[in-house]
Amino acid sequence: MKKIEIYDSTLRDGAQGEGVSFSVSDKLKIAECLDRFGVTYIEAGNPFSNPKDAQFFEKVQSLRLTNAKLAAFGSTAHKDTAPGDDEGVRALLAAGTKYVTVFGKAWKLHVDCILCTTPEENLAMISGTIKYLRSKGRTVFFDAEHFFDGYKDDPEYAIEVLKTAEKAGASALVLCDTNGGCFPDEISKTVRAACKAVNTPVGIHCHNDTGCAAANTVSAVRAGAAQIQGTFTGIGERCGNAAFTTVIPDLQLKLGYGLVSPKQLGTLTKLARYVTEIANMRLPATSPYVGRSAFAHKGGMHADGVSKNPATFEHIDPAAVGNHRSFPLSEVSGRSAVLPQLQAVEGSLTKSSAETKQIIDKMKSLEQEGFQFEAATASFELLVRKQLGRFTPHFEIDHYRIISSMDSLDGHTYIEKANAIVKVRVGDKYEITADEGEGPVNAIDKALRKALEVFYPELKKMYLVDFKVRVVSSNDSTAATTRVLIESTDGENTWTTVGASRDIINASVLALNDSIEYMLKDRSRE
Amino acid sequence: MKKIEIYDSTLRDGAQGEGVSFSVSDKLKIAECLDRFGVTYIEAGNPFSNPKDAQFFEKVQSLRLTNAKLAAFGSTAHKDTAPGDDEGVRALLAAGTKYVTVFGKAWKLHVDCILCTTPEENLAMISGTIKYLRSKGRTVFFDAEHFFDGYKDDPEYAIEVLKTAEKAGASALVLCDTNGGCFPDEISKTVRAACKAVNTPVGIHCHNDTGCAAANTVSAVRAGAAQIQGTFTGIGERCGNAAFTTVIPDLQLKLGYGLVSPKQLGTLTKLARYVTEIANMRLPATSPYVGRSAFAHKGGMHADGVSKNPATFEHIDPAAVGNHRSFPLSEVSGRSAVLPQLQAVEGSLTKSSAETKQIIDKMKSLEQEGFQFEAATASFELLVRKQLGRFTPHFEIDHYRIISSMDSLDGHTYIEKANAIVKVRVGDKYEITADEGEGPVNAIDKALRKALEVFYPELKKMYLVDFKVRVVSSNDSTAATTRVLIESTDGENTWTTVGASRDIINASVLALNDSIEYMLKDRSRE
Repeated sequence: MKKIEIYDSTLRDGAQGEGVSFSVSDKLKIAECLDRFGVTYIEAGNPFSNPKDAQFFEKVQSLRLTNAKLAAFGSTAHKDTAPGDDEGVRALLAAGTKYVTVFGKAWKLHVDCILCTTPEENLAMISGTIKYLRSKGRTVFFDAEHFFDGYKDDPEYAIEVLKTAEKAGASALVLCDTNGGCFPDEISKTVRAACKAVNTPVGIHCHNDTGCAAANTVSAVRAGAAQIQGTFTGIGERCGNAAFTTVIPDLQLKLGYGLVSPKQLGTLTKLARYVTEIANMRLPATSPYVGRSAFAHKGGMHADGVSKNPATFEHIDPAAVGNHRSFPLSEVSGRSAVLPQLQAVEGSLTKSSAETKQIIDKMKSLEQEGFQFEAATASFELLVRKQLGRFTPHFEIDHYRIISSMDSLDGHTYIEKANAIVKVRVGDKYEITADEGEGPVNAIDKALRKALEVFYPELKKMYLVDFKVRVVSSNDSTAATTRVLIESTDGENTWTTVGASRDIINASVLALNDSIEYMLKDRSRE
Repeated sequence: MKKIEIYDSTLRDGAQGEGVSFSVSDKLKIAECLDRFGVTYIEAGNPFSNPKDAQFFEKVQSLRLTNAKLAAFGSTAHKDTAPGDDEGVRALLAAGTKYVTVFGKAWKLHVDCILCTTPEENLAMISGTIKYLRSKGRTVFFDAEHFFDGYKDDPEYAIEVLKTAEKAGASALVLCDTNGGCFPDEISKTVRAACKAVNTPVGIHCHNDTGCAAANTVSAVRAGAAQIQGTFTGIGERCGNAAFTTVIPDLQLKLGYGLVSPKQLGTLTKLARYVTEIANMRLPATSPYVGRSAFAHKGGMHADGVSKNPATFEHIDPAAVGNHRSFPLSEVSGRSAVLPQLQAVEGSLTKSSAETKQIIDKMKSLEQEGFQFEAATASFELLVRKQLGRFTPHFEIDHYRIISSMDSLDGHTYIEKANAIVKVRVGDKYEITADEGEGPVNAIDKALRKALEVFYPELKKMYLVDFKVRVVSSNDSTAATTRVLIESTDGENTWTTVGASRDIINASVLALNDSIEYMLKDRSRE
């Protein structure tokens, strides 16, 4: 089983993805997480081009990394500049990492058009920079930018670039499909040729512009590459880089290469979601292996099949990557998918029970109004209980009033805190109270719980951990239906509820209401 | 140039994607759009398993399709049931399409474990169903489900399944990687073997569970497949199907196959966004070819390079797929990216102007507060004008008050319309008015424009076309920062503005304010 090195560029190439912006503290969190997962190298940034990266290199020294080594990334010295006098090269040294990755051009078009120099001068720049960094005690990786385009254009020159870097002392030669335009067979053929021409380990760096970044990376490894470059979740310039969340399980679970321990691989889904959360992005539900839908069996026949034998519709065991099988609740999902959740409430229900049909009908009609129960399983459970006559509310909101206001005075704008009044009824007792908050939803959230804590003190333990707003149909602009998902916790368990309405406050109150009822569901009424 | 047939399953396999739910009218719109784009076949649904699909087949007869033929999808007859007596087969005939696609098992595991029958009986079911449908005048495509897993397990039996379907009269034999677990080299080898064994055209149907759906489809075509199955944007069961938005340009622009006309290919981006909108999904910005970021050059060097020669960092011309190049505005994008937009306001600005630095600093500090200017170019233009002292507001909001209320009476809940009072100042004149709406944002939107129309009647032409809400940091739950993006139009132009605040109403008012100021920007003040 060949061991493959993982070189993660989430913090550098990933940060070049549109919409990605990491703070220094974000980068520290991600570095710790990559280390725990077991990547070999973390490309931590370009200390010259980005001042925030330089600051990060100072702070990162305090992290205790157990698996990963840090690398700083930068360009070869400029032409007509001695490496020791080049600002970029000096910034690379100042980063203070043992490993540095230097990129240089392997495509004559770039040498001519971007560097405005000769092919010979380009080789001299590569050689000089690597030798200088070696003389300062650094281990140097060479990123051969545009290697595949360069090889198609002039194979001899592209190979000459690699040989030059090897001779200057580079410890890895990374072949980059910088423009992301390649297909697996080209990658495979070219990597094979490069591995034959040099003795230094070869790496692979792919982008996803033809939708082939994962397949290309896998092909390169099978052709002899020993280091894979990519970003953890695939974020990066344009269409992104090869995603380790796809490539690592591809190589390890399906093709028998060794990258991380099975235990580390089992944290893949959790870490993918964590990194995405820190990046404040959205992990596509369809992401291979780690997406919410990766093992979601929606078609009725698929759900039936996988219940009989998982191998019939699953290419790997979801547990190997820390994900799990699910059966989305929806009109095409069929009764098999909904049944386990119905039976959790009432064991005697079957596929053909009248109640089963009635519950599914109710669910479909609420979905028409903008509700969605796939994620909001707590709201779904309450819906089932209501339909079965097993639900008596613990409270009722008698009324609420919310006042939002803004005043302008002498050219300054004053947004006042929103004020909410709420009156609740519990049994035959009433409680009216008020609170204020950042915006109307926060105000009603605080007031409602303040009123209910009088009756149910355990609500003090409960708090909201996530709040998501989605405009369901945006055609009606500000009058569109809004769906609100709320995730709550009591410190031990977490649950998700949903509300939908053309009024965002009402949608939020519906979701809040469910989240409180769910917390109280096993508690006798006051 | 080999002509490849496009078989689109957005309406069937696409509808099996988690979170996808098409109404009958959605399906009609998508069918028209696929036809215009030039797909060869539209798999319109499974009339037996989904009653909504049966209804769709009735309505679809009224569409005038010029390029595409409709196909109905279903299973072979059940064992021990004559095809003519099988409910599923009858539903296929009742759909009234000339083309029907029948799926059958090519993997013994499924024959044994799901069909609970013998390999011989499975062949008889395939043969009998195809013959019966042929006798009713249908052209039949055979989907060999799990073909690649079946071929790995027992190549002879898998090929026998194809030969049986061929002999029974199928017009295409579609090899399905139903579980999505394959890699390009396996696909290539297996498709080649299948093409050698039969004389009927072979098709390919891939899923994305290893992240290789596009690469696998391309490999299959190069190995001899003549029909590609997939969904337009890649939605589908689990990780989705091969996305035509990726595979079609891969094959046509990069490998020289003929699929659609260059003019039709030029509508790819527009249609991808339209189909996504109808599906009420989100097209990932990083989608190859059609994503918003597919040709976004964020890294400073990339932006510089592509300005000198697009081929340096673009593998194809974005115009070929109807997309366009962009330079996202952000801290890593560098001044080159921002400059064109600054110069549109003030031609004399350069990369090194003091104003350029000042504008970028202001932008970065607003991004810290939750604003995002990548999409909101109208707000960015106003920001530039403000920083250059070229902006005098056309109005000021003196104050607003919004009241949201709910009442419960006799067990019924009454959500009253939200009421907004707003007072604006234009020059030394004031106007105070009120309006009501669906929720607080709609109410303030209506009231604000009502007040301003007194001074600027042209605002009557303006309306909002899209309204998006995003919780920027969800850690503070209901007190989190909210970002609102508003897209407005005057019937001719559209523009996008942004607001961010911990109060959703304030965030919306900021974005509304910018949208109105942008509409009025070339208009002298009252």
